Amino acid sequence: MSALPETMLALVQRHDGYSDTATGPAIEDAAQWLEAREIARPEPGPGQVLVRLRMASVNPSDLHFIKGEYGQPRVKDQPAGFEGCGDVVATGDGAEALMNQRVAFVAAGAGAWAEYALADARTCIPLRPDISDADGAAQIVNPMTAMAMVDIARQSGEAFVLSAATSQLGKLMCSLGRDLELKPIAMVRREEAVEPLRALGAHEVLVTGDAQFSRKAADLCGSLKPRVFLDAVADPISEQVFAAMPSGARWIIYGKLGAENPELTQTGQLIFMGKRIEGFWLTRWMMDTAPEEQMRVVGEVQARFADGRWRTDVSDTLPLRDVVAKLSESLKKPDGKVMIVPG
Amino acid sequence: MSALPETMLALVQRHDGYSDTATGPAIEDAAQWLEAREIARPEPGPGQVLVRLRMASVNPSDLHFIKGEYGQPRVKDQPAGFEGCGDVVATGDGAEALMNQRVAFVAAGAGAWAEYALADARTCIPLRPDISDADGAAQIVNPMTAMAMVDIARQSGEAFVLSAATSQLGKLMCSLGRDLELKPIAMVRREEAVEPLRALGAHEVLVTGDAQFSRKAADLCGSLKPRVFLDAVADPISEQVFAAMPSGARWIIYGKLGAENPELTQTGQLIFMGKRIEGFWLTRWMMDTAPEEQMRVVGEVQARFADGRWRTDVSDTLPLRDVVAKLSESLKKPDGKVMIVPG
Repeated sequence: MSALPETMLALVQRHDGYSDTATGPAIEDAAQWLEAREIARPEPGPGQVLVRLRMASVNPSDLHFIKGEYGQPRVKDQPAGFEGCGDVVATGDGAEALMNQRVAFVAAGAGAWAEYALADARTCIPLRPDISDADGAAQIVNPMTAMAMVDIARQSGEAFVLSAATSQLGKLMCSLGRDLELKPIAMVRREEAVEPLRALGAHEVLVTGDAQFSRKAADLCGSLKPRVFLDAVADPISEQVFAAMPSGARWIIYGKLGAENPELTQTGQLIFMGKRIEGFWLTRWMMDTAPEEQMRVVGEVQARFADGRWRTDVSDTLPLRDVVAKLSESLKKPDGKVMIVPG
Repeated sequence: MSALPETMLALVQRHDGYSDTATGPAIEDAAQWLEAREIARPEPGPGQVLVRLRMASVNPSDLHFIKGEYGQPRVKDQPAGFEGCGDVVATGDGAEALMNQRVAFVAAGAGAWAEYALADARTCIPLRPDISDADGAAQIVNPMTAMAMVDIARQSGEAFVLSAATSQLGKLMCSLGRDLELKPIAMVRREEAVEPLRALGAHEVLVTGDAQFSRKAADLCGSLKPRVFLDAVADPISEQVFAAMPSGARWIIYGKLGAENPELTQTGQLIFMGKRIEGFWLTRWMMDTAPEEQMRVVGEVQARFADGRWRTDVSDTLPLRDVVAKLSESLKKPDGKVMIVPG
């Protein structure tokens, strides 16, 4: 490891623990939460690897996390960033087999928004040469979430509803749904997104701003009988869709992009129609799902990226040193993921 | 059947189907929904019995129903009333064994708020002589609901929270919880209810109007770790309690006594803490539960009333002809059930 520098540039967190707010993943000014700073390069412990970053992705969960609104506490002065891809340049005991491999990783301890990151060897996915860095950097959180949630939907029938369908995760779910011969009903905000989403796999597309939205949603719920609603928005429109769904429907919330909170206007539906409201968190799914099933999903995810069925759309790429100043602006570009690269 | 009159006094419904409102069980003026009228006495069909009413109970579900806010549609000009007790005075084919028996019944077709009602023979419970008419008239809906819901709570640990604890159903659940060595945490509106509820079986009592309510609820949730909330109120205070409960908590809504709707202020708890929101409806429980298990529950219910562990508190008794004028006023009397008798 003598060739590796002693320090590295990293986006470190400015706060500890939770903020006790619930404002969603919107970022006005990244400087409130992050600071670009030269810090000591971390050393891998037993079972860990040190990854030299090629590219890291910015997921909504990263934004929830740095704002102190995620399911695990922040650690001040540690680099942020859950997910990325890069080259293994040092290994701890038991992780030697990954040396020099290009891997997709979920960061453990020292985050992915830095020149070097730590990851547990068993969560690293060695990347086939035909996978791009961009696809590698968004290989785990979104694709695994898509696979797991569409699988939940499939168990409840053919049609399912998803919100925020133009997000990377939404697009993955539309195409996966179509490939599994399901009928994804996609909710979007902008009319322009309708045709691209149909091309990707959406069976129907509902535009939330449409004056006829309520009627159209009710009609589709009546004819296609979707019983699962995969929702990243969780606002009053979400509640309205849930209320239109048939008996036994499950409103599965996995994000909070909506600014307004939903009100439960129809508790009678929970009582008489056996509907329910719950959440989805990939971390919990991983804890509850057998390793061999997870490996099957990992293999399927990589195959889908390799043969082009899935693709990561990149809306902007920021070098580490520019992220604090430019992240908020970059996140406003629609229909793709912001990526972070060294430099 | 020659001795039976051709007509009878009944409280018939003034509306058909659903109202598409969700205003809860409060009744301003019963004349909006009900009319006392002489109508043709019904005849029992195959498998049915005709019951001469002794006493019928007024449950919140009756009020939801006549307002068109229940899980099944109203039928105009049919008598209302789900539950009562009386004597079987005529039987249809296959129901002869019940002739002349005093039974608790759930009405089928022609409701219990009438001099004569119809019931399916298999839902009639012959009453032991040591059961009073008042206990007989409230033998099914509340006691079965209490048994079923406390059983759900028991599967998730020792402590559970219940709202509207001074209702008949709430009191049944407190005493049943204690007898099963569970720890019911009872929510009430009035300070005076604290000691009576403790005596009945509540392990802790929270007064919602208490300035310290939030802190006390959070403390109890932290120390006793209740994972089930049996809620008949479903208002913003309910949501606050749910938010204070530990991971994996289930908010089980079975009524809507609260005037205000709850807002989902902490979707992160559904996502990261595996909490969920659902409903309970006795009708569904009966459809999903094996008949032998239901019979076991029926036997246990009757034994509890016979030996005095359970008792139906009656707050007021109204003859059929006075119900329309006086129901709204009678329902304001606390801590007991309004009963309807012939006359």
